[in-house]
Amino acid sequence: MLQIGIVGGTGYTGVELIRLLLAHPEVAIKIITSRSEAGKLVSDLFPNLRGACDIAFSEPDIKTLSACDLVFFATPNGTAMKMVPELLAEGVKVIDLAADFRIKDVHVWQQWYGMDHSCAELLQDAVYGMPEINRAEIASARLVANPGCYPTAVTLGFLPLLEAGIIDESSLIADAKSGVSGAGRAASVANLLCEVTESFKAYAVNGHRHLPEISQTLTTIMGKPVGLTFVPHLTPMVRGIEATLYARLTDNSQDLQSLYQSRYKDEVFVDVLPQGLVPETRSVKGSNLCRMSVFQPQGGDVVVVSSVIDNLVKGAAGQAIHNMNLMCSLKEDAGLTLTALLP
Amino acid sequence: MLQIGIVGGTGYTGVELIRLLLAHPEVAIKIITSRSEAGKLVSDLFPNLRGACDIAFSEPDIKTLSACDLVFFATPNGTAMKMVPELLAEGVKVIDLAADFRIKDVHVWQQWYGMDHSCAELLQDAVYGMPEINRAEIASARLVANPGCYPTAVTLGFLPLLEAGIIDESSLIADAKSGVSGAGRAASVANLLCEVTESFKAYAVNGHRHLPEISQTLTTIMGKPVGLTFVPHLTPMVRGIEATLYARLTDNSQDLQSLYQSRYKDEVFVDVLPQGLVPETRSVKGSNLCRMSVFQPQGGDVVVVSSVIDNLVKGAAGQAIHNMNLMCSLKEDAGLTLTALLP
Amino acid sequence: MLQIGIVGGTGYTGVELIRLLLAHPEVAIKIITSRSEAGKLVSDLFPNLRGACDIAFSEPDIKTLSACDLVFFATPNGTAMKMVPELLAEGVKVIDLAADFRIKDVHVWQQWYGMDHSCAELLQDAVYGMPEINRAEIASARLVANPGCYPTAVTLGFLPLLEAGIIDESSLIADAKSGVSGAGRAASVANLLCEVTESFKAYAVNGHRHLPEISQTLTTIMGKPVGLTFVPHLTPMVRGIEATLYARLTDNSQDLQSLYQSRYKDEVFVDVLPQGLVPETRSVKGSNLCRMSVFQPQGGDVVVVSSVIDNLVKGAAGQAIHNMNLMCSLKEDAGLTLTALLP
Amino acid sequence: MLQIGIVGGTGYTGVELIRLLLAHPEVAIKIITSRSEAGKLVSDLFPNLRGACDIAFSEPDIKTLSACDLVFFATPNGTAMKMVPELLAEGVKVIDLAADFRIKDVHVWQQWYGMDHSCAELLQDAVYGMPEINRAEIASARLVANPGCYPTAVTLGFLPLLEAGIIDESSLIADAKSGVSGAGRAASVANLLCEVTESFKAYAVNGHRHLPEISQTLTTIMGKPVGLTFVPHLTPMVRGIEATLYARLTDNSQDLQSLYQSRYKDEVFVDVLPQGLVPETRSVKGSNLCRMSVFQPQGGDVVVVSSVIDNLVKGAAGQAIHNMNLMCSLKEDAGLTLTALLP
Repeated sequence: MLQIGIVGGTGYTGVELIRLLLAHPEVAIKIITSRSEAGKLVSDLFPNLRGACDIAFSEPDIKTLSACDLVFFATPNGTAMKMVPELLAEGVKVIDLAADFRIKDVHVWQQWYGMDHSCAELLQDAVYGMPEINRAEIASARLVANPGCYPTAVTLGFLPLLEAGIIDESSLIADAKSGVSGAGRAASVANLLCEVTESFKAYAVNGHRHLPEISQTLTTIMGKPVGLTFVPHLTPMVRGIEATLYARLTDNSQDLQSLYQSRYKDEVFVDVLPQGLVPETRSVKGSNLCRMSVFQPQGGDVVVVSSVIDNLVKGAAGQAIHNMNLMCSLKEDAGLTLTALLP
Repeated sequence: MLQIGIVGGTGYTGVELIRLLLAHPEVAIKIITSRSEAGKLVSDLFPNLRGACDIAFSEPDIKTLSACDLVFFATPNGTAMKMVPELLAEGVKVIDLAADFRIKDVHVWQQWYGMDHSCAELLQDAVYGMPEINRAEIASARLVANPGCYPTAVTLGFLPLLEAGIIDESSLIADAKSGVSGAGRAASVANLLCEVTESFKAYAVNGHRHLPEISQTLTTIMGKPVGLTFVPHLTPMVRGIEATLYARLTDNSQDLQSLYQSRYKDEVFVDVLPQGLVPETRSVKGSNLCRMSVFQPQGGDVVVVSSVIDNLVKGAAGQAIHNMNLMCSLKEDAGLTLTALLP
Repeated sequence: MLQIGIVGGTGYTGVELIRLLLAHPEVAIKIITSRSEAGKLVSDLFPNLRGACDIAFSEPDIKTLSACDLVFFATPNGTAMKMVPELLAEGVKVIDLAADFRIKDVHVWQQWYGMDHSCAELLQDAVYGMPEINRAEIASARLVANPGCYPTAVTLGFLPLLEAGIIDESSLIADAKSGVSGAGRAASVANLLCEVTESFKAYAVNGHRHLPEISQTLTTIMGKPVGLTFVPHLTPMVRGIEATLYARLTDNSQDLQSLYQSRYKDEVFVDVLPQGLVPETRSVKGSNLCRMSVFQPQGGDVVVVSSVIDNLVKGAAGQAIHNMNLMCSLKEDAGLTLTALLP
Repeated sequence: MLQIGIVGGTGYTGVELIRLLLAHPEVAIKIITSRSEAGKLVSDLFPNLRGACDIAFSEPDIKTLSACDLVFFATPNGTAMKMVPELLAEGVKVIDLAADFRIKDVHVWQQWYGMDHSCAELLQDAVYGMPEINRAEIASARLVANPGCYPTAVTLGFLPLLEAGIIDESSLIADAKSGVSGAGRAASVANLLCEVTESFKAYAVNGHRHLPEISQTLTTIMGKPVGLTFVPHLTPMVRGIEATLYARLTDNSQDLQSLYQSRYKDEVFVDVLPQGLVPETRSVKGSNLCRMSVFQPQGGDVVVVSSVIDNLVKGAAGQAIHNMNLMCSLKEDAGLTLTALLP
């Protein structure tokens, strides 16, 4: 059994990671740290885990963490970078679920995240953990930057079109909608039930931190700059992201349905729906799937893709475990054969 | 007091119309018809109206309706067209909240609505009841086609840009999200709470009936064909539409905030938010306002507009009463000075 | 026009009070205070009020408040008692929507609220503002303690049975359910959408602050101690309280439906439903009504009452305005003829 | 692998049974029948099952079903009784998730369910499938009547008190609240999102079908008639039941916390919370647990129990699989070691 450490287990990404790892046949959680909750049973904070997890939160400590085979960081941005160099030096593999290692250009990172990077030298080493793009690199990585939730839904949705070179990459539009769990578990007025239920709104229209992350990946795929407008929206539900993507076709001759099915036929966690069906976020709630559909309305030159994920699973903890499976030579879907609850 | 008739009062548009008219200082509801519920008190079907409305549903009857000054149709598509010619002949003014008179080209209408039109000769007479565009025509109309909910949010959002002639009208995108009340009050599995809550999805991606309606209006404004991609989405809430609109600027020199504020400065039911704020649907729930914001992300050549309405008020019953006020020379905001409930 | 001050306008009770007073024909809001938001426009905090309210929050100040005819306190417990004596001395009428003046016995108050009372001498003067019980006293009061939300639903539900003397008052049970707005607008993890939606739970089973308040009123009605078990529950919705009340009949001969209809026939804000119907909270959302039904299941000796209110209206701001109307000799329902939004 | 048949797989209980059985290590689903959906892939109706279940619905047929080791009925009331005698004759074990075999007295059954019973002779043979009460009988049963959802939460909550003989069994009160999935997946206006979200109400106050079922079990436990008032309520969420139970203690000397912990210490699916904590329904969503707490408010003579389950799991499909495990000598928790999703 792989020995696993989790730094920062008190947020929604953390508790989801714990839930999934507890059901994983090849790993054992050894440590779950939290400065604020040290000493408290994890199941006292998250009563769904009563009877399933008897670990108490402990203070984060490099020495103890170094005894793990792999450590997940489910911490706020800026925390992982302070501990990762030491852990790597000790031979521990690391997956960061926050944003510390997602952006290659440290100046871009510092501009969007508003802080200095304390180990910029690791940015080139870090592998962007999207298995559908970087499977081989992930398998040999010691440090994986787990993608953001929006970037997962958006990138997977655009990928077949960009790889096929059949859209105008200068005017991509991604209109994305997320459940409230994406905003995390911190005390706030803005995310009270009374503030967000029965309402819908756009936010961060002038620029969201996931924009440079998506742009970096799409640019890498294309080998040239892409133009992307990305507008996130807050949806009155807990889990789920839907991204509706728009692009102009430069080549109208391709069968888009075949293109998508072909691109993802070997991907265990991407499900291209049969023609005409539209994915709903609840169909992937609690599962590691990305479901998507592709449309060409009225046979025109605009292609529309709808891509859905559970932001806490495929968009966070599930994708992180997928990366762990690859890094540790486990079966790709170990611990991830989950079926969404319906209703 | 104006004598008002309502044909078809058992749906969500109907009950909202009743609620608003009961509070209107210048009108009296005389008749509310329903074939299926004839004889039952309206307040037995809608307990919120207990004590406020003592009318019983009656069978629709031209003779009785002819005694009204104005008749609203809150019926399924295809019903109004069967009764409207006789009512007009009797000198009764008519506002149809369904789609029977929204499309000028009867062939287009028949294609999208899948039935023959029984009084196509009235289509040219009917005035499209969007006061911000057609105020004068509405004031002198005898038959008003009340706009659809999506068309209201989308058209008002694009209007200043189109009138200013500063966007490429060939590639407009409208990504719209609606609460479930837009689907009506009919028994169905698809709209059960257990089917739609905690989920989000696109629908009708290949073509929604509101597409030709929006296109017709935008084309009229521009005087030439527009290219529009319109994708509606179902949002897990009762009321509200948010439309995020995308267009490419052909003229980057305009101050967009000023353009929007200037266009709508005299419109009592359009509220352009101060720069940087984003409207949320709950801020207009139960009110007749359309709130909107305009953005130019990263100063690029894409303009983004977010426009919100209550689909049952500004997108249906409230706009219908606005039209009634204009047709009957009442104060424009009579009965419509409503403040949204918050929370 | 009566000049009105509101101390503490940043919570949900405050914004509801503002919404209702803005639509009241006989009053003008002169001041809305908030220490934390002083200087900010009220409509910047509550966008539903844009265009309806151009007042900015100001620092609370006795001198300015003294120029008002009546001041509402929509503050946390313990705030009003510090300012009320001075305002009363200036001849200003006061309605406290918090709990400072609800309990006559200062020792009981201090035990449940965990603080010293700074003006216990006013407790006997203060009138408990439930018009259905204390109409005359309210009309001549200078200080009214506005009832709690649960106490309103529970007391009105038990009232006819207790007054008729036909139940065993030693074993009353009140199982009450509240929407999340009852928990207020403070930043907290516990009331995040992700923590409370799609879940239901009891809380404060061993003792809730509203228990002594209800007991005091019921004891006063009966002229002897009552035994009450009160269990509140948190319901995944914004507004609404439903209280299901259970008591043992000591006299089985009465027609309970007639008893209830007779007791409340002159009360404008209590609606006893026809036999067999059950009230739903949404039927009173945004309105000042208490709707209720009475049952005697299987004709046995247990009576069951279901009583619903909007906790922010009849359970707070609406009842406060009802009290203001009585204190200021206005029409009882002035500003309160509201119909719930449906759906 | 046990061969399993499911009759009636199109409802919420059916799809949950399928989800759970697909993850069960010892069984294989052989047949899923539905008259209305015969020929359609199960995963076309329930997209969460895409990739997990490749079975198509088939017409129900005794011969094919007879080849199964065990058949579940997830059908409307009155369906199972028509097929069960033949299946039993073929040696097939049967678990009915509907109500056909729950009531021993056929007259009581016919009165509450409004139809004749076609195989009343089986009622005495059928074992009421609540393992915490009838473990041994279930293990040797050929026909198990799976308990209703409310009866599961209520009976388990009262059980320790009744067995200990320390409450007045003549005046029990059960105030129960259920999510909307309890109302099933049939097309209806009453359960549309727009009708039930953001609202709360009691229903069936004068008598619900689960009342005689609960009374029968409690009477059997006590060996004498019990007096029970049972009021169900509809809660705006999908899954979950909370039952708040009230009884008068006749013996005040017992430590209730110890009583509950002791009674359930060997029950794998009942979790008594530590003193002072209250269970929330979300902590058992998707899991087979019943969580409960016991309180004695203010040390008085009223005992209050709060008991929560997932109505579709412990209240239906999960308990049915627990029964299957017992009937087929499998590990009791096989396929049922589920952790609730949070958030």
